[in-house]
Amino acid sequence: MLPNYPGVSPLVTRRLPRYYRHLTELMKSGTERISSREFADMIGFTASQIRQDLNCFGGFGQQGYGYNVATLRAEIGRILSVDKSHPAIILGAGHLGVALANNMGFEQCGFRLAGIFDVNPAIVDQTIKGCVVRHTSELSAFCAEFHPQVCVLCTPPAVVPELVKNLVSYGVKSFWNFSQCDISTFYPNEIVVEDVQLSDSLMNLSFHLNEKLGGH
Amino acid sequence: MLPNYPGVSPLVTRRLPRYYRHLTELMKSGTERISSREFADMIGFTASQIRQDLNCFGGFGQQGYGYNVATLRAEIGRILSVDKSHPAIILGAGHLGVALANNMGFEQCGFRLAGIFDVNPAIVDQTIKGCVVRHTSELSAFCAEFHPQVCVLCTPPAVVPELVKNLVSYGVKSFWNFSQCDISTFYPNEIVVEDVQLSDSLMNLSFHLNEKLGGH
Repeated sequence: MLPNYPGVSPLVTRRLPRYYRHLTELMKSGTERISSREFADMIGFTASQIRQDLNCFGGFGQQGYGYNVATLRAEIGRILSVDKSHPAIILGAGHLGVALANNMGFEQCGFRLAGIFDVNPAIVDQTIKGCVVRHTSELSAFCAEFHPQVCVLCTPPAVVPELVKNLVSYGVKSFWNFSQCDISTFYPNEIVVEDVQLSDSLMNLSFHLNEKLGGH
Repeated sequence: MLPNYPGVSPLVTRRLPRYYRHLTELMKSGTERISSREFADMIGFTASQIRQDLNCFGGFGQQGYGYNVATLRAEIGRILSVDKSHPAIILGAGHLGVALANNMGFEQCGFRLAGIFDVNPAIVDQTIKGCVVRHTSELSAFCAEFHPQVCVLCTPPAVVPELVKNLVSYGVKSFWNFSQCDISTFYPNEIVVEDVQLSDSLMNLSFHLNEKLGGH
């Protein structure tokens, strides 16, 4: 299958969720339309950057009117495919896995939570967000029956390579990766990986804090 | 105070932690030197991109030799200031806050965990990773005494604007923000913000998964 937006830079598409999130807030507050300047101030980008980004998908504003909030939100939501409901599983039901199960609006982001897996007998059979935690040994049978499209990896890094190999063979197409193991190089043409490398993020904060404080 | 690396793009500095993480793994495995090609394959970047990135800081490789792992790791660690030990506090001791307290190597990223705060009486006074959870009402006195430089925001978004206002007045200089509230526009010249917008990340995965699957 061909991608819908083959020429658009990942730097642009990565900004779309931020637009979508703010447009959702605007809708909740009853705002019907917003000027590109006001929208830019709200988001913290320039109006020109927003126009350039949206022009990659055809542009959605009108000169002198600005943006219709509901229309723009619907368009960006469609581009992001948040109206889909791809089944997702969480591997690893420690504090992080439980936090994601409880607090992430998977349904608002194009997914639905279909299963949670762990190897710890103290956790298996507990119910989290309406899902009974299954033992990881049941993964193969579960995938054969429910065809999860995305796996949220919240396991220790050491077990990740074997797990990913198995999951790819079970048909899992994408990974939301919290494991601190770089899996993007394993199957570069077969799977989609979104990394949340928390230690990288914290080191980035360290860099910028020290730049602000000045001097080493 | 002046920044040390004023002209370097944030896109470049954001890649440094990834280099640092892989160099740490190489050191652990006893590797003393690595060619730029091998290093590129390991990281998933091109050798040319790595050279360009490192040249922003003076470059650290030698033609025909590659990189000395320990030296390059030390240099990048120094640039990232991971040898610092800035006191950090976590606000919000739900599953996410506890996961970060337990699993993040703050000490390896330039910080040390100095305090955890929550408003829930069932959590206050518990001990997490050697820190007694304090009530959020003690923040002002704590900051006056211990001068935390960074606050990890794991609270619901609704309470964030008031909290950040107070923390800035208490001298907190930087925020690791998991709250889904965009605080970067609040005090753009006063504070450093590193956002971990998990719903943005999940929507980004949704976009790329659907691009891979093809068709809307």
